[in-house]
Amino acid sequence: MLARVPTSFKRLPRAVREQQMLDAAVKVFSRRGYHAASMDEIADDAGISKPMVYAYLGAKEELFTACLHREGTRLMEAIAAAVEPDLPADEQLWRGLRAFFRFVGAHRDGWAVLYRQARGEPPLAGAVVTMRGRMIDVVTGLLERALAARGREVRASELEIMAYALVGASESVADWLADHPEADADRAATRMMNVAWLGAGQLLDGELWRPADAG
Amino acid sequence: MLARVPTSFKRLPRAVREQQMLDAAVKVFSRRGYHAASMDEIADDAGISKPMVYAYLGAKEELFTACLHREGTRLMEAIAAAVEPDLPADEQLWRGLRAFFRFVGAHRDGWAVLYRQARGEPPLAGAVVTMRGRMIDVVTGLLERALAARGREVRASELEIMAYALVGASESVADWLADHPEADADRAATRMMNVAWLGAGQLLDGELWRPADAG
Repeated sequence: MLARVPTSFKRLPRAVREQQMLDAAVKVFSRRGYHAASMDEIADDAGISKPMVYAYLGAKEELFTACLHREGTRLMEAIAAAVEPDLPADEQLWRGLRAFFRFVGAHRDGWAVLYRQARGEPPLAGAVVTMRGRMIDVVTGLLERALAARGREVRASELEIMAYALVGASESVADWLADHPEADADRAATRMMNVAWLGAGQLLDGELWRPADAG
Repeated sequence: MLARVPTSFKRLPRAVREQQMLDAAVKVFSRRGYHAASMDEIADDAGISKPMVYAYLGAKEELFTACLHREGTRLMEAIAAAVEPDLPADEQLWRGLRAFFRFVGAHRDGWAVLYRQARGEPPLAGAVVTMRGRMIDVVTGLLERALAARGREVRASELEIMAYALVGASESVADWLADHPEADADRAATRMMNVAWLGAGQLLDGELWRPADAG
């Protein structure tokens, strides 16, 4: 195994090595599933000794959580970069959804699989609950601002249920997208927007929604 | 342990014993999680010897799948009993959603927890995929008939994405409901309807939706 490691590799900074281990771990977890994935295969794929993987990132559960955290942070960054707070609420939601589905579409073997695995697994589910919580907060805030801009107010618990519905719907369509390699991410985002925004529309003004750049 | 079993128990028919074992298993799986749940505790809770549990329902994975199957079938029965095919599509969806959330609300410790656990667990997830598939088929059919009744047609893949969104949104709101013991199931169903139906409304006619019995 060590024979495969190029000499120059040993001089790589810690952060770069960690990313290589995480790349290998995401690949192996996605392919094998959490339980069947072996630390040997991850170490082998990363071209690093197993004790080194443990030393850098810990045991399997910590390693999986680190993968999920890195992929989740990348996803959140992609969404945050796409949403501009000065835009109208529907444009913000559209850009956020499009960034979400583009990310999922571009990481069909990574993000969606990890997230799906972690969702039901008690030791791992905590990380998903945290990430979902962040998404739900973002959507709740978006709905709240949209209502405020229209001079309306709705009880926080109502907005929360609506945010759960929107996030759950997006997760489900992301599952669909992950399972359909031929499907187009932007198209999925548009469909999702038609479900999501028109639902939220009852709180707002219930008009048909179309992306501004679709004419 | 056997001292706790009433004498009359031994004469119970197999089907009744199985239901008692499943009741115990649902309780223990919900409380402990799939991995931490022990067959000893399940047998003890059911007042039946562990070899007998294995003989009747198999090992832990089969037992969990049997729990999920029973709860899922009860849920489907509750939904089917609530939906009348002659009603308008929105009334059908409303009754289906209300039955769904009432079931989840009445089984906060059972169904939702089992379903959540199974979702991400490779050996168990198959049963959830099957059940989700049935729900998605039901919703797709509902949307299709609603469109046909309006003389409209939409590509099957579009309807499928919309059904994924609706089922995912319902699952997510069910999670919320399972976590909020004080929340009202009918209220959650109404909120969900407002998200779901108005989204589907773009394919239909986009009007505000209210339950017929709310005046």
